[in-house]
Amino acid sequence: MQTQILERMESDVRTYSRSFPVVFTTARNARLTDEDGREYIDFLAGAGSLNYGHNNPKIKQALVDYLASDGIVHGLDFWTAAKRDYLETLEELILKPRGLDYKVQFPGPTGTNAVEAAIRLARNVKGRHNIVTFTNGFHGVTMGALATTGNRKFREATGGVPTVGGTFMPYDGYLGDGTDTLDYFEKLLTDKSGGLDVPAGVIVETVQGEGGINAAGLDWLKRLEQICQDNDILLIVDDIQAGCGRTGKFFSFEHAGITPDIVTNSKSLSGFGLPFAQVLMRPELDTWKPGQYNGTFRGFNLAFTTAAATLREYWSDDTFERDVQRKGRVVADRFAKLAAWITEQGIEASERGRGLMRGIDVGTGDIADKITAKAFENGLIIETSGQDGEVVKCLCPLTITDEDLLEGLDILEKSAKQALS
Amino acid sequence: MQTQILERMESDVRTYSRSFPVVFTTARNARLTDEDGREYIDFLAGAGSLNYGHNNPKIKQALVDYLASDGIVHGLDFWTAAKRDYLETLEELILKPRGLDYKVQFPGPTGTNAVEAAIRLARNVKGRHNIVTFTNGFHGVTMGALATTGNRKFREATGGVPTVGGTFMPYDGYLGDGTDTLDYFEKLLTDKSGGLDVPAGVIVETVQGEGGINAAGLDWLKRLEQICQDNDILLIVDDIQAGCGRTGKFFSFEHAGITPDIVTNSKSLSGFGLPFAQVLMRPELDTWKPGQYNGTFRGFNLAFTTAAATLREYWSDDTFERDVQRKGRVVADRFAKLAAWITEQGIEASERGRGLMRGIDVGTGDIADKITAKAFENGLIIETSGQDGEVVKCLCPLTITDEDLLEGLDILEKSAKQALS
Amino acid sequence: MQTQILERMESDVRTYSRSFPVVFTTARNARLTDEDGREYIDFLAGAGSLNYGHNNPKIKQALVDYLASDGIVHGLDFWTAAKRDYLETLEELILKPRGLDYKVQFPGPTGTNAVEAAIRLARNVKGRHNIVTFTNGFHGVTMGALATTGNRKFREATGGVPTVGGTFMPYDGYLGDGTDTLDYFEKLLTDKSGGLDVPAGVIVETVQGEGGINAAGLDWLKRLEQICQDNDILLIVDDIQAGCGRTGKFFSFEHAGITPDIVTNSKSLSGFGLPFAQVLMRPELDTWKPGQYNGTFRGFNLAFTTAAATLREYWSDDTFERDVQRKGRVVADRFAKLAAWITEQGIEASERGRGLMRGIDVGTGDIADKITAKAFENGLIIETSGQDGEVVKCLCPLTITDEDLLEGLDILEKSAKQALS
Amino acid sequence: MQTQILERMESDVRTYSRSFPVVFTTARNARLTDEDGREYIDFLAGAGSLNYGHNNPKIKQALVDYLASDGIVHGLDFWTAAKRDYLETLEELILKPRGLDYKVQFPGPTGTNAVEAAIRLARNVKGRHNIVTFTNGFHGVTMGALATTGNRKFREATGGVPTVGGTFMPYDGYLGDGTDTLDYFEKLLTDKSGGLDVPAGVIVETVQGEGGINAAGLDWLKRLEQICQDNDILLIVDDIQAGCGRTGKFFSFEHAGITPDIVTNSKSLSGFGLPFAQVLMRPELDTWKPGQYNGTFRGFNLAFTTAAATLREYWSDDTFERDVQRKGRVVADRFAKLAAWITEQGIEASERGRGLMRGIDVGTGDIADKITAKAFENGLIIETSGQDGEVVKCLCPLTITDEDLLEGLDILEKSAKQALS
Repeated sequence: MQTQILERMESDVRTYSRSFPVVFTTARNARLTDEDGREYIDFLAGAGSLNYGHNNPKIKQALVDYLASDGIVHGLDFWTAAKRDYLETLEELILKPRGLDYKVQFPGPTGTNAVEAAIRLARNVKGRHNIVTFTNGFHGVTMGALATTGNRKFREATGGVPTVGGTFMPYDGYLGDGTDTLDYFEKLLTDKSGGLDVPAGVIVETVQGEGGINAAGLDWLKRLEQICQDNDILLIVDDIQAGCGRTGKFFSFEHAGITPDIVTNSKSLSGFGLPFAQVLMRPELDTWKPGQYNGTFRGFNLAFTTAAATLREYWSDDTFERDVQRKGRVVADRFAKLAAWITEQGIEASERGRGLMRGIDVGTGDIADKITAKAFENGLIIETSGQDGEVVKCLCPLTITDEDLLEGLDILEKSAKQALS
Repeated sequence: MQTQILERMESDVRTYSRSFPVVFTTARNARLTDEDGREYIDFLAGAGSLNYGHNNPKIKQALVDYLASDGIVHGLDFWTAAKRDYLETLEELILKPRGLDYKVQFPGPTGTNAVEAAIRLARNVKGRHNIVTFTNGFHGVTMGALATTGNRKFREATGGVPTVGGTFMPYDGYLGDGTDTLDYFEKLLTDKSGGLDVPAGVIVETVQGEGGINAAGLDWLKRLEQICQDNDILLIVDDIQAGCGRTGKFFSFEHAGITPDIVTNSKSLSGFGLPFAQVLMRPELDTWKPGQYNGTFRGFNLAFTTAAATLREYWSDDTFERDVQRKGRVVADRFAKLAAWITEQGIEASERGRGLMRGIDVGTGDIADKITAKAFENGLIIETSGQDGEVVKCLCPLTITDEDLLEGLDILEKSAKQALS
Repeated sequence: MQTQILERMESDVRTYSRSFPVVFTTARNARLTDEDGREYIDFLAGAGSLNYGHNNPKIKQALVDYLASDGIVHGLDFWTAAKRDYLETLEELILKPRGLDYKVQFPGPTGTNAVEAAIRLARNVKGRHNIVTFTNGFHGVTMGALATTGNRKFREATGGVPTVGGTFMPYDGYLGDGTDTLDYFEKLLTDKSGGLDVPAGVIVETVQGEGGINAAGLDWLKRLEQICQDNDILLIVDDIQAGCGRTGKFFSFEHAGITPDIVTNSKSLSGFGLPFAQVLMRPELDTWKPGQYNGTFRGFNLAFTTAAATLREYWSDDTFERDVQRKGRVVADRFAKLAAWITEQGIEASERGRGLMRGIDVGTGDIADKITAKAFENGLIIETSGQDGEVVKCLCPLTITDEDLLEGLDILEKSAKQALS
Repeated sequence: MQTQILERMESDVRTYSRSFPVVFTTARNARLTDEDGREYIDFLAGAGSLNYGHNNPKIKQALVDYLASDGIVHGLDFWTAAKRDYLETLEELILKPRGLDYKVQFPGPTGTNAVEAAIRLARNVKGRHNIVTFTNGFHGVTMGALATTGNRKFREATGGVPTVGGTFMPYDGYLGDGTDTLDYFEKLLTDKSGGLDVPAGVIVETVQGEGGINAAGLDWLKRLEQICQDNDILLIVDDIQAGCGRTGKFFSFEHAGITPDIVTNSKSLSGFGLPFAQVLMRPELDTWKPGQYNGTFRGFNLAFTTAAATLREYWSDDTFERDVQRKGRVVADRFAKLAAWITEQGIEASERGRGLMRGIDVGTGDIADKITAKAFENGLIIETSGQDGEVVKCLCPLTITDEDLLEGLDILEKSAKQALS
């Protein structure tokens, strides 16, 4: 494979091509192929952007048909038939059945743009600058979003500009099993000299993807919602990675029975890997004035088209989400067994996650890297997450076939055993 | 046209659907069609994102072929054949012929992501936090980029978080004809108590798009480059709107014969209206460590594919750029005449711009709005820019046919006369 | 008493004249007299600035002699005989006997100036922007210092400019008796995505004055020192209120046997209530370049003079500090008894503090205010502290006579009983 | 002279002891004496803090009498007889005769504390974060004030925390003789995308002391006042160095016939070199809530006492200010002649200033340093100011005898001739 020009011309900021130094060409559902024709099972799935698999044929058909019709592709924030169709479908298939009433903002088509819009909206509505976020949270790297992202790799690469407007609280479980971390948050909220500026909003992932597949307890999430309501604080659920069915429900917060004030979606929202993002907000929060937030690609109509097709294909009833839940249990079982085996080797390990957002915490990034490197040799693309990269993370397509899922799990098991024996 | 759900569900932040309250369906080159079948000539072109027209058939073919082959769509920052092809084409057709040597970073696929990466890189390289930007500059609205964007509409909607790290200098012409505004900048640079923190970089548009089609003088740009070199400051040209051929050269800075240290591109970079962005940097500036800046959609392979196709189709020789220059002169002539007529009506007006980035300054947003509203009635989509929206702005597709160009100009002239008589 | 012009001309920002709405004229040691000739015992003592009492005759004599000699009063940062004498005395009587080796910076003569200098020095030395501070910490209200001060009253009155560069950690005891709050700090320090920017320094009061007379455990302070050393973080003890003998040692950190990298002093440092402040730093940290931090009154020679006289009078041996410790025990015993009585009335109360920095926590500001208002009626000046003003705080002069101390305690007891019966 | 302990123990941040490396002991009016008995004429006068000379006997008598009476020294913000007397005197002798109506805030007793309070008040009143300040302005070095101070020496020593909330405009004359710099400010105010956040206030010195004795034109100041009024912006005159009679009027802004919304005073306000500061504000701006800004030494009653005595001694009629004006003309004449002589030597030089705030601009700090170093050898203490230290600055006591003034001027002339011949 010819990689010289890639190595020479692409910035050293590149990462994945270091773990997987091959040139990929084609892909279908959960399988990637490289230029030498070698196939890989994909447990990474665009870091959660390909919940419906690579080149999902039904979604692709909608895209190709739209292109064939000369449908408008780039529409700024024009009204288009494709946007209207998406909004109708979203309302009909997603919002109404769940009893949700949201208005929709289309920011620039990336997660960080959605987060910037969401936290800015919260600040404008409440007239306060602070946003509470949580340890190990990841919400993007543009400067506004970065104030809520815990990762030092990014925070220390701002060229000496400190982030402004975010305060970190311990996520569920951060202080050990016996401690409800919301006690600390609640104490600070009422403390007039505790140093916590009363926040406009709280931004939270119900399951932290980059942070290590940490799944907040459902009671903890409910209490968080209550604290926000009691203190006039907006609850923002960042569902960029955990949303779009990943946890076995369309919105990850459905498990907890909570209703956020603001929701961010991106990654798998288009259904086809196209850049796309939205901010959902309770209608009364929509205090934006025309044009106060913008972005050239906020009307990417190919994404409206595939997103609507995706909703129709997968979210007209609960068949799909039950299937995701079933597969999630399969992965959880296998991961629990594998974790037990790893623990037997003297490396404490544990299974974690919700739905098909699953991981095995093996304690250190070194060990996790050994496993994933071996997996790649064996034909499985799988990545790590967590503050030290200590969690082997399964984000396989939700549409993966049972055969591929099991084969992938077999490869992972074999690789772990090779790596740690 | 059914617009109720759009009015009800989309956030009030929407703007263009207020000026153009119709539902668009299809589009081809410089023509848009609404749901009632009415056609419009498009002098807006996705705010400069559709330099090659809507649904350009040759570019579309490349896209459709790629889709048909199950080419990888979303690739994080994997190496892919499509990315490699893009980089090879960029080097062969754009960089080498212009004597440019740049490494390429793919940030999130929007302009503001590219600007955030560019200014952060400059800060990291120089170890200084300040970025000098210019009056009426527009570089995006995420919090890092917003520090360099002059527009109060955005700056006042941050919910009380002041931007950090940008200092505004007067753009060329800002202090009147007799004053070289760089005198002020240069004086401040050497003044130990002038209040200017020595900047890491200067970010500049050679022609300000949103700021009112202000074209910096070529000597001014050369002097700016010299000042940067003399003071160890990086020169960042934000070519997001003015690049990709808009001014009659691929890079807008070619006119001035300068070589920026860092360049940002987006908008028309994909050739097809797809979200896409890149940061070009002199190789020795590439001090990024792996993963220090990221974004889920930084490997949007459909965009690599169309971008490469675009370069091959339009930039293999100078035919295209000479044609753009020719059309630019056509628009300039007609705009000059129209400006003269408007001036005769007692409203001082003037033509401005470079290449096919052209405007007529009519003094106030009220007058400009009257003209563009009338134009819309007459079947022409055209927008305003400038601090008060006082500049009627032509950003028609570079590929517009002469017939459509002339018809559009005729409509504009007629509309102005209707509006101002 | 004539108060009209005071009410009319002084800004509404005034506070103490609301609790004590009389015009004071003279004062001696622990007794204040108002214009009507009424005497008050002073348990406030300039909020800890009058450790040696009002108009201490021995210190005053040094001041008057210096004035009589035409000694230089205002000396910028000139070398003067008075400054030299102060430095010699500080070294001989305070630093050497305690095995301390510090260089001395004289910032502007207020505590907040000293804190600004101290945290800026820490940042410059370590090249990091963050300073860790603690819940309920008070370190001044200028914008740099305010980043480390927890009180919302000040934090919310910055006119919309968020503070930058401070992160709050829970102070000792903040999370309840069973939790060592440093566990959280230490976990965050090693967590690569916990959101804590690695700090340049930690600033801490060993006993929090404004925050509610919270005395950190000596083991907690030792562990804090160890954590700082292990993580290359500078330990700054803000000894502005707790220093100068208040806790029974010259420096409050002596109790814990720790050696801060940087120390701030002010309040009682001059011995006579004169504005004065200093920053002590380990010699190798003195990376200041000439003039990098300044202040017009940084050479207030009257304060050098009284400060030196104070050290000679009170700190030549351990007689004074033993006497302070003895009085501290007297107050502690009486406060414990009074707290027990209050608790018997159904209001949970507890005694707290170290040395003569003592308080009774009565749960709410309302109750505390009732007690202190009654005390004022009965001739005792005593204030509250804590996040809700829930702690009745004794900061009487360290030089108070036993008679006055006991009379003050009697008044407080009587007042509490009147207020709560 | 014994200087070892001073060199060893005092932080390297010290400055004046480098230019004047002797140990001073006593001082009277305009004469300083060092430990070897050598006398110096003082043209520095505590950087403008000793307008009434060293150890002014009449002011000292008031101080000594107050001390003898056991008057309260440190009073937090208690009402005291001394404070009341000061306020009455200020109103009667200063405010009323000038038709001014201000309320008074006593912040911590340094200039930077007053500036922090003033700009915070402006922000709170207007609900905007930005403060416009001017090139070469100096308003203190705590982080809030530093946002308005131009000097890089301080701005670059913040340990990587950028200042927030200040924007620099060119001071009068900054863009050359032909340009009214307020044109730029006014243009930016009305420009919706010029990058200037609409300021809450403008802070300005009518004569820049540290910035190089730049005296703003009186018309420029009047226009600045008008612009502020027209744009709902508060005008803050920082009269810390130029006030208290230095320019020949009590307030420096009297020359221009303007009435600032807010005024800061410090330096010579106490009349005796004691730390003292005040913020004057139009009564309707006094929106402070009790205790929203504080400082331990905000009730330094010795300063109230000397300040009142000073007003009575010097400001009961216009005798003193006329005398200052007369002396100012003497200095101006001599400086003009000396500047002419220096210019004849091939070094362009010019006289500048207002009242007894006078300087000679000799072009570079090197030349200015040569002159002042020689002056020190010859028995004159005189300093430089300006961005490069290029201005030899005379801030002699306003009470200097004609003999000392002329002798000082003679020494300066002789020293310049020695240095430059």
